[in-house]
Amino acid sequence: MTRKISSRFSGGFLSGETFETYLKRQARRVEVALRRHAPREMPSDAQIGKAMRYSLLAGGKRLRPVLTLAAAEAVGGSSDSVLPFACAIELVHTYSLIHDDLPAMDDDDLRRGRPTSHVVFGEAVAILAGDGLLTDAFAICTNSSNRRRVPPALVLEFTNVLAEAAGYKGMIRGQALDLAAEGKRLTRPELERLHLCKTGALIAASVEGGAVLCGAPSAQRKALANYGRLIGLAFQIQDDVLDLTADEKTLGKTAKSDLAEKKMTFPALLGVEGSRKAARDTAERAVASLKKFDRRADPLRALARYVVERGH
Amino acid sequence: MTRKISSRFSGGFLSGETFETYLKRQARRVEVALRRHAPREMPSDAQIGKAMRYSLLAGGKRLRPVLTLAAAEAVGGSSDSVLPFACAIELVHTYSLIHDDLPAMDDDDLRRGRPTSHVVFGEAVAILAGDGLLTDAFAICTNSSNRRRVPPALVLEFTNVLAEAAGYKGMIRGQALDLAAEGKRLTRPELERLHLCKTGALIAASVEGGAVLCGAPSAQRKALANYGRLIGLAFQIQDDVLDLTADEKTLGKTAKSDLAEKKMTFPALLGVEGSRKAARDTAERAVASLKKFDRRADPLRALARYVVERGH
Repeated sequence: MTRKISSRFSGGFLSGETFETYLKRQARRVEVALRRHAPREMPSDAQIGKAMRYSLLAGGKRLRPVLTLAAAEAVGGSSDSVLPFACAIELVHTYSLIHDDLPAMDDDDLRRGRPTSHVVFGEAVAILAGDGLLTDAFAICTNSSNRRRVPPALVLEFTNVLAEAAGYKGMIRGQALDLAAEGKRLTRPELERLHLCKTGALIAASVEGGAVLCGAPSAQRKALANYGRLIGLAFQIQDDVLDLTADEKTLGKTAKSDLAEKKMTFPALLGVEGSRKAARDTAERAVASLKKFDRRADPLRALARYVVERGH
Repeated sequence: MTRKISSRFSGGFLSGETFETYLKRQARRVEVALRRHAPREMPSDAQIGKAMRYSLLAGGKRLRPVLTLAAAEAVGGSSDSVLPFACAIELVHTYSLIHDDLPAMDDDDLRRGRPTSHVVFGEAVAILAGDGLLTDAFAICTNSSNRRRVPPALVLEFTNVLAEAAGYKGMIRGQALDLAAEGKRLTRPELERLHLCKTGALIAASVEGGAVLCGAPSAQRKALANYGRLIGLAFQIQDDVLDLTADEKTLGKTAKSDLAEKKMTFPALLGVEGSRKAARDTAERAVASLKKFDRRADPLRALARYVVERGH
């Protein structure tokens, strides 16, 4: 009987599973759950429900919710229980993409290989669809059905971690630093701070959040949050490299948009090769912060390396 | 000793207090707490912190948070404990004003007697300031300091009521119905549904939320939510009347903006006098839904009448 432990509680890779298969398996669970949590379209809603679904169900890697599941498993928890919360994080991520793409912000036309929300639905609907996704993320977190699986105090703690990461001190400040930096030359610490807020905060919350929901001790939470910030940074460095070197089809969004928008990037500071090395080093520091975790953290280790190897 | 009950636990009007004095007293408490909860400005934030404070601390009646305090007292709870949550509601309200005023939405230049956020700070910052206020509202609700005063399960329940009211099924849908209605003639039920979502949902959540945080029984919650929806509707009818009949100085925002924007209004359906009567009738229905409450609900009763008498 002891050999027949349910896979959802053992965590980590299944026997013989590659990282790619693991990623697909977890992303598929997220996809199914997202369809359940996406808003039902309502009549006379000026297409807002449709716009919310359009952006939320546009595919994508589902990196953040997969991180939440992987973190829950890494601390020995149940990834089933954290699935709705993982979806809430993807709603927050999707809202941030819709608002970042707006004409008043980065003015991007293409995202995940499709026209951006405001191109399809107009600005007013895009703003509201973003607002709706952000708000509904908190409705999902605090929904009474979750409280059967996770104690209220842990749900509250998770929701606070998410709100702080998405709020003025996190993503909002990151976007602000980004706006303020337009056309300016930043130092490496300034550029890192920008991305630690803009991308790192939500990724860190995705990882830490999984551990929080499972009641993990503070040392594990801190190690995972640190891991999250570092892979967030590595991800961004690699993103900057890909923006310069990949074509639009591979990227699924407008290529060389950073140059066009006169954005400060890591390649501008460190060159392409120097940036690739910085991404790899940052990913290895992320892996190092997991040294006290057992093999159930192997997917997180593999993910750190995947982040800097994608797109080649 | 029994005569020396602390005023904050007795609730309702203080001895000899008029409704105007009550409103000022509660609004002042809210104002002090809001200053504590408003974001501290941070360097290189592209003025986003400043923009958040600009809109949040622009005065206003603080009707929603005062309702939360009044509801807590009406069910015999402590309005001190609910003060941070009342502030969170005002953050959500302020976010909705900033986004509603954007050029892509209602394109309003004046609000609470001052230029709107996007006029002062530009569109990008206004969008982000709204996003920041909305997100920080949930950070305030779930902050660990609250859990000392209110049990986690009740905090969660409140946060869910707030998120549902602000989300796709509430305010977002209201704004959507508003966009979809532009230039169209609506029936009275359609116009009421629009405003029950757009204004009523958050007002109802403000009242119900105060009761939820104090652990009030379901019948009291329902009665208060119903009261909230009705005064929200009465408030909107009166707003439509004032938009037609008052001047800009009294209004603090652009007068006759409904006509300019070809918005469907209650006066267009019922005439000015008919609308005034509808507002009064709706307010009386709100008062009637409080019949099982004792004198501690007197401020709520007075408030329902105040809502339809203001501006004369």
